[in-house]
Amino acid sequence: MSGAGTGAADAAAVGADAEAETAVETYTTSVVGGTGFTGGELLRLLAGHPAFEVVQATSRSADNMTVGRSHPNLRDLDLRFSDPDDLESVDVLFSATPHGVSMGRVDEYFDVADTVVDLSADFRLPEAAMYDEWYDGHASPEYLERAEYALPELNRENLPGADLIAGGGCNATATILGLKPLVDAGVLGPETGEVVVDVKVGSSEGGAGGGAASSHPERSGVVRPYAPTGHRHEAEIEAYLGLSVSFTVHAVDMVRGASATCHVFPDEPVSKADLWTGYRGAYADEPFMRIVSGGGGVYRYPEPKSVAGTNHGEVGFELDPGNRRVVVFSAIDNMTKGSAGQAVHAANVALGLPETAGLEFGGLHPVGSP
Amino acid sequence: MSGAGTGAADAAAVGADAEAETAVETYTTSVVGGTGFTGGELLRLLAGHPAFEVVQATSRSADNMTVGRSHPNLRDLDLRFSDPDDLESVDVLFSATPHGVSMGRVDEYFDVADTVVDLSADFRLPEAAMYDEWYDGHASPEYLERAEYALPELNRENLPGADLIAGGGCNATATILGLKPLVDAGVLGPETGEVVVDVKVGSSEGGAGGGAASSHPERSGVVRPYAPTGHRHEAEIEAYLGLSVSFTVHAVDMVRGASATCHVFPDEPVSKADLWTGYRGAYADEPFMRIVSGGGGVYRYPEPKSVAGTNHGEVGFELDPGNRRVVVFSAIDNMTKGSAGQAVHAANVALGLPETAGLEFGGLHPVGSP
Amino acid sequence: MSGAGTGAADAAAVGADAEAETAVETYTTSVVGGTGFTGGELLRLLAGHPAFEVVQATSRSADNMTVGRSHPNLRDLDLRFSDPDDLESVDVLFSATPHGVSMGRVDEYFDVADTVVDLSADFRLPEAAMYDEWYDGHASPEYLERAEYALPELNRENLPGADLIAGGGCNATATILGLKPLVDAGVLGPETGEVVVDVKVGSSEGGAGGGAASSHPERSGVVRPYAPTGHRHEAEIEAYLGLSVSFTVHAVDMVRGASATCHVFPDEPVSKADLWTGYRGAYADEPFMRIVSGGGGVYRYPEPKSVAGTNHGEVGFELDPGNRRVVVFSAIDNMTKGSAGQAVHAANVALGLPETAGLEFGGLHPVGSP
Amino acid sequence: MSGAGTGAADAAAVGADAEAETAVETYTTSVVGGTGFTGGELLRLLAGHPAFEVVQATSRSADNMTVGRSHPNLRDLDLRFSDPDDLESVDVLFSATPHGVSMGRVDEYFDVADTVVDLSADFRLPEAAMYDEWYDGHASPEYLERAEYALPELNRENLPGADLIAGGGCNATATILGLKPLVDAGVLGPETGEVVVDVKVGSSEGGAGGGAASSHPERSGVVRPYAPTGHRHEAEIEAYLGLSVSFTVHAVDMVRGASATCHVFPDEPVSKADLWTGYRGAYADEPFMRIVSGGGGVYRYPEPKSVAGTNHGEVGFELDPGNRRVVVFSAIDNMTKGSAGQAVHAANVALGLPETAGLEFGGLHPVGSP
Repeated sequence: MSGAGTGAADAAAVGADAEAETAVETYTTSVVGGTGFTGGELLRLLAGHPAFEVVQATSRSADNMTVGRSHPNLRDLDLRFSDPDDLESVDVLFSATPHGVSMGRVDEYFDVADTVVDLSADFRLPEAAMYDEWYDGHASPEYLERAEYALPELNRENLPGADLIAGGGCNATATILGLKPLVDAGVLGPETGEVVVDVKVGSSEGGAGGGAASSHPERSGVVRPYAPTGHRHEAEIEAYLGLSVSFTVHAVDMVRGASATCHVFPDEPVSKADLWTGYRGAYADEPFMRIVSGGGGVYRYPEPKSVAGTNHGEVGFELDPGNRRVVVFSAIDNMTKGSAGQAVHAANVALGLPETAGLEFGGLHPVGSP
Repeated sequence: MSGAGTGAADAAAVGADAEAETAVETYTTSVVGGTGFTGGELLRLLAGHPAFEVVQATSRSADNMTVGRSHPNLRDLDLRFSDPDDLESVDVLFSATPHGVSMGRVDEYFDVADTVVDLSADFRLPEAAMYDEWYDGHASPEYLERAEYALPELNRENLPGADLIAGGGCNATATILGLKPLVDAGVLGPETGEVVVDVKVGSSEGGAGGGAASSHPERSGVVRPYAPTGHRHEAEIEAYLGLSVSFTVHAVDMVRGASATCHVFPDEPVSKADLWTGYRGAYADEPFMRIVSGGGGVYRYPEPKSVAGTNHGEVGFELDPGNRRVVVFSAIDNMTKGSAGQAVHAANVALGLPETAGLEFGGLHPVGSP
Repeated sequence: MSGAGTGAADAAAVGADAEAETAVETYTTSVVGGTGFTGGELLRLLAGHPAFEVVQATSRSADNMTVGRSHPNLRDLDLRFSDPDDLESVDVLFSATPHGVSMGRVDEYFDVADTVVDLSADFRLPEAAMYDEWYDGHASPEYLERAEYALPELNRENLPGADLIAGGGCNATATILGLKPLVDAGVLGPETGEVVVDVKVGSSEGGAGGGAASSHPERSGVVRPYAPTGHRHEAEIEAYLGLSVSFTVHAVDMVRGASATCHVFPDEPVSKADLWTGYRGAYADEPFMRIVSGGGGVYRYPEPKSVAGTNHGEVGFELDPGNRRVVVFSAIDNMTKGSAGQAVHAANVALGLPETAGLEFGGLHPVGSP
Repeated sequence: MSGAGTGAADAAAVGADAEAETAVETYTTSVVGGTGFTGGELLRLLAGHPAFEVVQATSRSADNMTVGRSHPNLRDLDLRFSDPDDLESVDVLFSATPHGVSMGRVDEYFDVADTVVDLSADFRLPEAAMYDEWYDGHASPEYLERAEYALPELNRENLPGADLIAGGGCNATATILGLKPLVDAGVLGPETGEVVVDVKVGSSEGGAGGGAASSHPERSGVVRPYAPTGHRHEAEIEAYLGLSVSFTVHAVDMVRGASATCHVFPDEPVSKADLWTGYRGAYADEPFMRIVSGGGGVYRYPEPKSVAGTNHGEVGFELDPGNRRVVVFSAIDNMTKGSAGQAVHAANVALGLPETAGLEFGGLHPVGSP
């Protein structure tokens, strides 16, 4: 659909056309920052997407090298990285650069693209003051109001027609997906007591850069408190759930995955039936969410393994009657639902495409440290 | 395409129709032995296949339980296991039972199905005498001539119209894919000297059954010689490549994957260019084969990680001039290319469907112990 | 010291003698239940202990087989398993049987041994009513008062001369070691409010038995909530710290190790200096405890890897000023400090031996999934 | 024994003294290059050695930082790294620097130390011409004749009194230990025909430096051909066994460990009994060698896990009658038997100390990716 308008109304019309006719219209897309892990995940998803055509992937370090050299799963993709300073015109530009880059280049991005989807933290928070508090300030605060948070389960109604989409943080995503049904049900609110969120994440969160702490000999087999307190994703959770949570993140031995265990102490007693009602109400119609809570077999609760490589999120819960605690488990693939998949999902919604387009992969079993 | 003939000619016609019309015809399929790992992998692939409809999956132990209880990646599949003694009529029956079961039930299978694809060892070897030597004899030797070996890279020409397809062994598949181009090029033959095949495999090869040796505390981090000599897959390699190989299999710490390192000592010197010519000649047109040999980046040779979850095979090679050795590396996912994916690929060829139908998943990066 | 009295006074005298003379006196010991993981760990520690001589290891399933067949690290040990119904007389009997066995055999044990050290849950809790609530009742409640909890950091003063020693649970041990200094300092008490303990454990906790959930393909790479609520170790924590905690245990991909992250919300603000004072006061003189809290390098907080194979415990902490939270990290090897090492440590104290005797191994670096 | 002569005769006398008297004499030692993995392993072994006192550990990058900051298992060691240009006088200097450093500093080393033990490749090969062929030439070829290869199982008779000891390469060590009994028995010789050595190693072989290929997301779960041909350890094997071998090294998912599978085709048939006789003859009196070959239980052949953290080597074998192949398995911990432990063992022999002094640790069970 290169050159055409990408407003939601147009997109919806195109969607209708697509069903009526056999020809499928496509949006040209580019990925800025394609050698990183989330950049590679974007390329994987976009390359398999029926409505997106990848016309450019940039990399300063791998300029002119094949995408498959960095991402062996993409060896069949006929594409070479190009210079990030030489952006092509596209319908949708996805940016997967380190934090701080997009806020400096967003004007440039809009010069070449109708829709910008940013996977960094640069447009995630709604107010400039939050960047002053949690990051190093913001270079383009005038865009913050325009940006829409990518997570459709939270923000679907504001995504159609959005032209600046801000992908959520992986740990924040896992937490928000776990707790939102409790907030919606009134079980949890800003006045409730402490909410402890204990997160376990895989090594892909550390990015492709390497470093001693992420070398295989040091990183294997760890249960390592890497963000005991003060993790920046707290800001997102507070901004979008209206809750201050006690947040601690541990590195564990897997590559993909984020698992949030949320310990909640509601003011009023809740029953297991209440919980089922709340979570079913929130997620029964969501194409990517599953409630996994008890039952038989080996996989009785959410596990990152079960959703590795997919855009699915699993949530589950148990009641601890003795201390009136609700324990909520939430598991995602940090690379997919927690980053690139969420971005594609949001773009699908923004452009009026089928929500699951390009995100149909359902995962593997058995799978090791995914 | 339930009820229609399934001969290759018909199938090809259907394939042509499928392109001309928007309606897609489907073959009904069943999976006998659905709780095992290869059964689950079959269900994953068939459920995502545009031309197959899964109408039955059987399990004696999990009768009436959901498929998703055994295979968490299939939680969205609306299917329950049923009694293996009560088989439904289907176009294609896939059997993923332990060795020895299919040879006893093959008449039954053909009572309910036009095409039978067996993933066990029961029809892999061409002669009954080989079962006497390597297994415990054969209960239905009259079917051996009718059976076609599933690996299309080896046996494509005999698959169209085949109604009994015998899936190859995973370690044999990795070896055959690695060595076949050398055999075709005349570099390697029955008179060459020793061929050493040193295989490394993941824990999924041991099946879903468990046992002390495959428990996580004992199986983690191993380099364990589990078949020092006498592995049954030697028989297949000899049968289909015409070579006797020195074969040793090690368990290593991954879940999916088989990697065969083949050490070959040709009688006549070969050059790197000869090798490239031979491997390109063998695999340039193969939709699932890749030659990965040297080059830059992290992934310079075949690795099981790079093909995990996919039907791809990677092969690569190096020359050791000092001792005139050719080292060939071959990597597959034992569950997919080495079993269920190979079976679906063969069924696609047998039925005249596009070869890659249902097998498009290209893998993940990064991915841990896949 | 076979045949001699084993009271604390005697033992202390022997200890003094041992230093004065070159001859080392030894206590004969046996291990009941020697094929399990904790039984094997006991045998490892006892075999290297300067004051213990292992005269018997029993196993019903491996009767008459060498110890090294079950535990390859003990191949040099010249010992075969014998029938558990035929116990030899020893100074100290260690029992590493499944829960429920020792409570039925304790009279027998005392028939053949002066001192009994039990590693199961059978004598851990101080009151029979707690067994009614958390287990299936108790067969020998008259022994409960006699039993001393093994953890020297908690109960050192009562161990000298004890003749029935009850090893703590691994997860309870990690938690108690993490929280006790806060309790001692008055930062934490029964009235304090919620204490969330989020535990991550390795696969050796599941024992040598195997089973589908602990098979390598299913257990690799997990973050699996295996005890969302109601874990029995809560009972111990409550009994010995006087606190009810919100306790959740996750299986993660390591073999050895238990890591407890304790989220505490003190009524009164505490400073980092207060915490250092409290933890130093509690552990500065403890031979096996280390405070690891911030600092540089890769290993800034407690990690199970850092103490794998050792009897060390690491504790560390951070303050989260925003919500007045104290986060405490505690890491042990569940097999050693959490079980067999703790038992040997307690026996050392009970018998008046040097506390670190037989427990000097300091661990490895680098080490993977230990 | 600081200040005393360190010749073998003296050392033997001291050894005798040590048994006669209670006082233990000690040798002062230093480790040059203490932040690397083998440097840390040396420090671990030397710190626990009854006859060695570590007086210095050097590091340019971590100058003045505690040893425990780099090696968390050594947190109790009261030692800080110092400047490598400021070497203290010691009895024994161990050098664990990258290849190429020691050959340039060996004069300096002998200025401050009576005995030098080098763990790099700098003095492993007996002739300068081999350094020209396999490395970048040699800066101090006059020392090559003086150097003794450290592996006592190969070179014990030349070690007493040696003052320059050259530690073997880990992969060469595994291979030499596996094949030497066959060479000694005349089963294998330079005329024998092809010997294929297929090695699998852990990530600690790559050192502490990191880099993209050894980052956890890329290195996890691999079976990666990292030295398809031309590995430098071939030179050592040829030099010390008199054999040219076909050598290929794979990275697999463990941290510690090297496993060599040697495929040998003897000219004359050998029996299993011949093999037992040969291996028993070679290793029955060796304190660190074990023959593990068949038998029952989970651990039937050599495995790196079984010897992780120890100075043990395991060897085993099987016969493949069909093609007259002998398969030999050899497993070591590359950090210990393959490097630092071998060095300490050699120093023990050189100084007349008990061979197993400081090397008593027997390993753990269960243990994951050690």
